[in-house]
Amino acid sequence: MLENSERTELSSLGEFGLIKHLTQFIEIKNESTIKGVGDDAAVIDYKGNQTVISTDMLVEGIHFDMAYVPLKHLGYKAVSVNLSDIYAMNATPKQITVSIAMSNRYSVEAIEELYAGMFLACEKHKVDIVGGDTTTNVSGLVISITAIGEAKSEDLVYRSGASEGDLLCVSGDLGGAYVGLQLLEREKKIFIESPGVQPDFDGNDYILERQLKPEARKDIPPLLKQLEVKPTSMIDISDGLASEIIHLSTQSKVGCNLYEDKIPIDPQTYTMAREFNLDPTVCALSGGEDYELLFTIKQEDFLKIKANPNISIIGHMTDAKSGINLITKGGTSTPLKAQGWDALLKNE
Amino acid sequence: MLENSERTELSSLGEFGLIKHLTQFIEIKNESTIKGVGDDAAVIDYKGNQTVISTDMLVEGIHFDMAYVPLKHLGYKAVSVNLSDIYAMNATPKQITVSIAMSNRYSVEAIEELYAGMFLACEKHKVDIVGGDTTTNVSGLVISITAIGEAKSEDLVYRSGASEGDLLCVSGDLGGAYVGLQLLEREKKIFIESPGVQPDFDGNDYILERQLKPEARKDIPPLLKQLEVKPTSMIDISDGLASEIIHLSTQSKVGCNLYEDKIPIDPQTYTMAREFNLDPTVCALSGGEDYELLFTIKQEDFLKIKANPNISIIGHMTDAKSGINLITKGGTSTPLKAQGWDALLKNE
Repeated sequence: MLENSERTELSSLGEFGLIKHLTQFIEIKNESTIKGVGDDAAVIDYKGNQTVISTDMLVEGIHFDMAYVPLKHLGYKAVSVNLSDIYAMNATPKQITVSIAMSNRYSVEAIEELYAGMFLACEKHKVDIVGGDTTTNVSGLVISITAIGEAKSEDLVYRSGASEGDLLCVSGDLGGAYVGLQLLEREKKIFIESPGVQPDFDGNDYILERQLKPEARKDIPPLLKQLEVKPTSMIDISDGLASEIIHLSTQSKVGCNLYEDKIPIDPQTYTMAREFNLDPTVCALSGGEDYELLFTIKQEDFLKIKANPNISIIGHMTDAKSGINLITKGGTSTPLKAQGWDALLKNE
Repeated sequence: MLENSERTELSSLGEFGLIKHLTQFIEIKNESTIKGVGDDAAVIDYKGNQTVISTDMLVEGIHFDMAYVPLKHLGYKAVSVNLSDIYAMNATPKQITVSIAMSNRYSVEAIEELYAGMFLACEKHKVDIVGGDTTTNVSGLVISITAIGEAKSEDLVYRSGASEGDLLCVSGDLGGAYVGLQLLEREKKIFIESPGVQPDFDGNDYILERQLKPEARKDIPPLLKQLEVKPTSMIDISDGLASEIIHLSTQSKVGCNLYEDKIPIDPQTYTMAREFNLDPTVCALSGGEDYELLFTIKQEDFLKIKANPNISIIGHMTDAKSGINLITKGGTSTPLKAQGWDALLKNE
């Protein structure tokens, strides 16, 4: 992507020069941001609202492969993934800090691309970059982002608030990010074996975008507020539907019945999963990286959301003793297992 | 250090298992910590005080060398370095988030050691660990910490508040961390060449501790409050005295005269610097990692601090046109240059 453009060595700017270069055009978007980049710490004033903090780290070779992830998308995704955690608290993200470690293999132009993606996501979510650290890495790129948000205490939604009888809901559709990754890996393999062959991504824009440029569901918390529904528990889907349902159930001390035929799967995801001989349900359950919001609501709120195209009702919470089960399309009940992507196992 | 003990593979616990294992004994110390580890985000409530946020990343092979840094010390230092930035705002650190990427070369016991050091620093500074991310790295260890603190708006001290005539002050003494590093590197080299030879650290505890286990100056903000002195500007010394003076002067739009004979240097630092044929003043100016606080005060506060053994007055601020100068022991004025440790150049 950058082969034909100029290359400026990172060392030509130095650490302070690079930080200045990257942060010079930052404009503060939030009243709560008193002081951003440029001192020992940022200063934030929420005037009585509660502060919400979340942090995530992305590592080259573990979470992304530079062979098929454009840096701008990577920057966008790194920010989205963090903001998603703030929305999952039913809060509004306001600030982020960004720490980056990168080898000298990366040029200043490459880091600019990465930052361009981060700025784009910040613009979209009206978030300020208020600090960070930029350093060298022995090899590869590591991105660590901390997101800070605010909420009224009474609006916050934890993972632990679900009760027996609550309905289980999810935004958007699932499995697309995983199938998109399979497609990227297939085309990379073909490219390595036959460098002349152009990658075949035709008609698969949606699943590629789900993988490369996931959108944190900024729209869901205000939508629920507008519908006058306060979720009883909420989590974002980073590791896969199964893993997140287990988190909600365990922390809420309830069981769950998930109905396979209710899981929302996009036709493109479905078709491409079949092409890879993958079960689309398994992609939704264990693929992860969809960054949709999974939440529970009281039964009495059913009518308020049932017609909403952004939300699917996929199950209900039971008593803890009944366990966490998938009710298959055939009507059989089988215990749900988290086989989600596990960063610590993936590298072996 | 861990050779004789049991080794548990990271993969045997998995990511969630590891997080649970490491965070199971965390006890919340601060009223402002509403919710710590275990949800999508931590929840913090400062009840009207301002929030202060700082972040730092430490990379194996760049910021530390596992050959001579015990993991427990590394954990302690990683936390201290971040808290130092919060104190440099004249604020009180309250929470941290910790993200770690590590290769499978590290065992669970090794990460426990790292966490033991972080817990120790948190205990000492009454700080809560409220979240984080634990992931695999292709090689080496990367630690990213975000520190969150609080302060009353009127107590905050920025880098930009110094005026002409203000006195320049520093806590503790300088150059020790750099000389300690030289000693560690010398002994490592000897060890590599002659593995049988035991390292010779006799009588150098102080400079070794300055390098391996630096203490963030938690005591200085309350001391200044007690002395009824509010600094006009403040910064912590991570890159070296010269670099930090330039930050304060530039951001405050003033000049500075620094007096070489006033720079506080411990006798052990002085002696060992000489043994390495290093100029002790240069170690203080450019060595960095001392994590002392550098600040300016109004002249009228001179009497309040002049007898305090924790604080040295080392210069005064001038008009911007006079520049930033070192007045040597011989009485010559020479422009001060930042030759501080630069992470981006060090790896070349």
